[in-house]
Amino acid sequence: MKSDLDEIMQAQDIDALLVTGAGIHNPAMVYFIGTGVHISAADVIKKRGEPAILFHGPMERDEAAKTGLVTRSYANYSAKELFKQAGGDQARVEALMYKSMLQDAGVSKGRVALYGQIEFGKGIALCETIEALVPQISFVRMMRDDLLARAMSTKDVKEIEQIREIGRITTRVVARVADYLTGQKVHDEMLVDKKGDPIQVKDIKKKINVWLAEEGAENPEGTIFAIGKDGGIPHSAGNGADILRVGVPIVFDIFPCQAGGGYFYDFTRTWCLSYAPEVVHKLYGQVRSVYETIIAELEANQLFVKYQRRACELFEAMGHVTVMTNPETEEGYVHSLGHGVGLHVQEIPFSRLYGPMDGRLISGTVFTIEPGLYYPSKEVGVRLEDTYWVTPEGKIEKLVDYPMDLVLPITV
Amino acid sequence: MKSDLDEIMQAQDIDALLVTGAGIHNPAMVYFIGTGVHISAADVIKKRGEPAILFHGPMERDEAAKTGLVTRSYANYSAKELFKQAGGDQARVEALMYKSMLQDAGVSKGRVALYGQIEFGKGIALCETIEALVPQISFVRMMRDDLLARAMSTKDVKEIEQIREIGRITTRVVARVADYLTGQKVHDEMLVDKKGDPIQVKDIKKKINVWLAEEGAENPEGTIFAIGKDGGIPHSAGNGADILRVGVPIVFDIFPCQAGGGYFYDFTRTWCLSYAPEVVHKLYGQVRSVYETIIAELEANQLFVKYQRRACELFEAMGHVTVMTNPETEEGYVHSLGHGVGLHVQEIPFSRLYGPMDGRLISGTVFTIEPGLYYPSKEVGVRLEDTYWVTPEGKIEKLVDYPMDLVLPITV
Repeated sequence: MKSDLDEIMQAQDIDALLVTGAGIHNPAMVYFIGTGVHISAADVIKKRGEPAILFHGPMERDEAAKTGLVTRSYANYSAKELFKQAGGDQARVEALMYKSMLQDAGVSKGRVALYGQIEFGKGIALCETIEALVPQISFVRMMRDDLLARAMSTKDVKEIEQIREIGRITTRVVARVADYLTGQKVHDEMLVDKKGDPIQVKDIKKKINVWLAEEGAENPEGTIFAIGKDGGIPHSAGNGADILRVGVPIVFDIFPCQAGGGYFYDFTRTWCLSYAPEVVHKLYGQVRSVYETIIAELEANQLFVKYQRRACELFEAMGHVTVMTNPETEEGYVHSLGHGVGLHVQEIPFSRLYGPMDGRLISGTVFTIEPGLYYPSKEVGVRLEDTYWVTPEGKIEKLVDYPMDLVLPITV
Repeated sequence: MKSDLDEIMQAQDIDALLVTGAGIHNPAMVYFIGTGVHISAADVIKKRGEPAILFHGPMERDEAAKTGLVTRSYANYSAKELFKQAGGDQARVEALMYKSMLQDAGVSKGRVALYGQIEFGKGIALCETIEALVPQISFVRMMRDDLLARAMSTKDVKEIEQIREIGRITTRVVARVADYLTGQKVHDEMLVDKKGDPIQVKDIKKKINVWLAEEGAENPEGTIFAIGKDGGIPHSAGNGADILRVGVPIVFDIFPCQAGGGYFYDFTRTWCLSYAPEVVHKLYGQVRSVYETIIAELEANQLFVKYQRRACELFEAMGHVTVMTNPETEEGYVHSLGHGVGLHVQEIPFSRLYGPMDGRLISGTVFTIEPGLYYPSKEVGVRLEDTYWVTPEGKIEKLVDYPMDLVLPITV
């Protein structure tokens, strides 16, 4: 967590961090400036052992002050002067400015790690131009063990409360969707509104956006509300023109954050309106059983991938193909068991079978458990997902409760 | 515009473009895949003279198909195999994958320009690792004249319609805010709701978010609703706890896009509830007069900065300090006249006095005109802003009309 940052920097021999980019929807930046700050573009320089400094546009001084960080306006670095000094070369103007900002933060040499969302080509040009100007500084490109990702992957009590709060908002919105669906009429197997018009996926998505906004939340990465075959493809967002029908499974995966950017929550339910066909019932039962077995077996400090292997074993024993035996399969259990959640909707630790495998469920980790089964050829997908965390005492705790029922009875 | 891309690539000796990152809130990516596509991360490779190819996760194949691009799943590049080949080095795994994707797109040598939002350090590592693997390819870091930004800066008819549509949504929401404000009661100089509770800035912001969501729009970069002193600082988003009072100027700057990311619109009005004090009236009159003079003088194909200079002259003749004589001033006319608008809320051309000055108002350009005056010490700021475009015939046209009135009379 954030309080470990200096120690992790020390262990990895990093002298400073340079974080750049927008003030919202830019997790590394939000980690330092906090949520709900309206800054269009900024830089944070944190020297090891010292407080982070926020560099900001002069017009954004009031927003910058809200962060509680040490602040310094770009107006201290005269654009006119630098433009002259750089002979009109824009990349050099920026590099000269960074040189001064690094100096003002006490960073004139050493290993500096780079963070934040930037434009690909321009970011590389900037980094290389600064390096040419200040050869005493070397920028660390990519760490095998990314230090900021590592710090961010364990949450302190304040962060847990923010995640739990967005989790409460998420489940309240999910409950409103369920209430809305069960309160409609059915005509010709289709859900219809008061005027008798069939209800489409896009109608539901619009309601979700409005209800999230009413709760002070947003879903910057969209919402999955996928029915039938679309639900059989884990990342299909669903087709706006699809009509909701009784007995057709819906995969509803919602991952909002607070409006203006902030901590995410990640949550999925699979629903059938009115009744569930036999095939859906069976797959749902299997996913739920794997979900419950895994939850019962979860222990702190274990490798996350251990439970992905276990989920694969369990699904295979039920006769499903999984990514363990066929990594490219598009039917059966086709994805990973879960991932960390924080300022990124997906962050370390990951449970995937290939790639770095050192993700452990250590104290403070917030993560999803989301087994699923997918048979697009049978027009069905089932996934169940909740967000959990490892308490300081090493207990595994669900952040917010919500019923898991498959069938939503139509009450009208 | 997009149809010019091959020609611009040819003129700048670029053989291919590599665009990477998220599928939403990533302008370069959205430019190729279109709006409303839910893809969590993808790559687009466009070889000069050939259609762009979209590389996507296997679970996102349905969303990828919506783009109408040639598509290719990452499943064609076996993670297991590459992981073995790279000796477990994650940066090398990714670089090997890009090598294969570039090859499959017919790009085995030449100059490749890089685009898209990426993580700073990781992006540099990736670029350098690919270059080491494929020395025949050289990545172009930053162009003096950024080719994609140039293509994006002129809009075709379809893009203009999308921008006009979000402009209509924007002004409808602005009208709802005005109707809401003028329909409330006043008590002790404060605006109060039906229960008699004072109305705060955060109440208005929440309503704006809900009304935008109802219109299928969002404001991923926030909204400025800044009163009194906050309005005197151009980029202050406003203070949520501030209470709305009669006679206190409000700077309302709203820049939404379609939900899920897309083209932006940018719009500002300055309002006083019930009445405007003399000082506000006077500043408003001056800003409006400069706005109208500039609009009357605008001509296609001129340098944008010409009108920034003109605005400075006009304001200085009225006795205000401007950025032309004092680039660091925080009172008077403290910013630039306008900027391009598109998939970025701000993009080229810019009207700024320092920096590249070749931004011209050529046919297809969409841009803002937004003069303002700021006196935070007097607790007042005034800004007026509309979005214009240069038609194919070279006419300068406002995209959406909306009244400019300063005073909103309270009707209750």
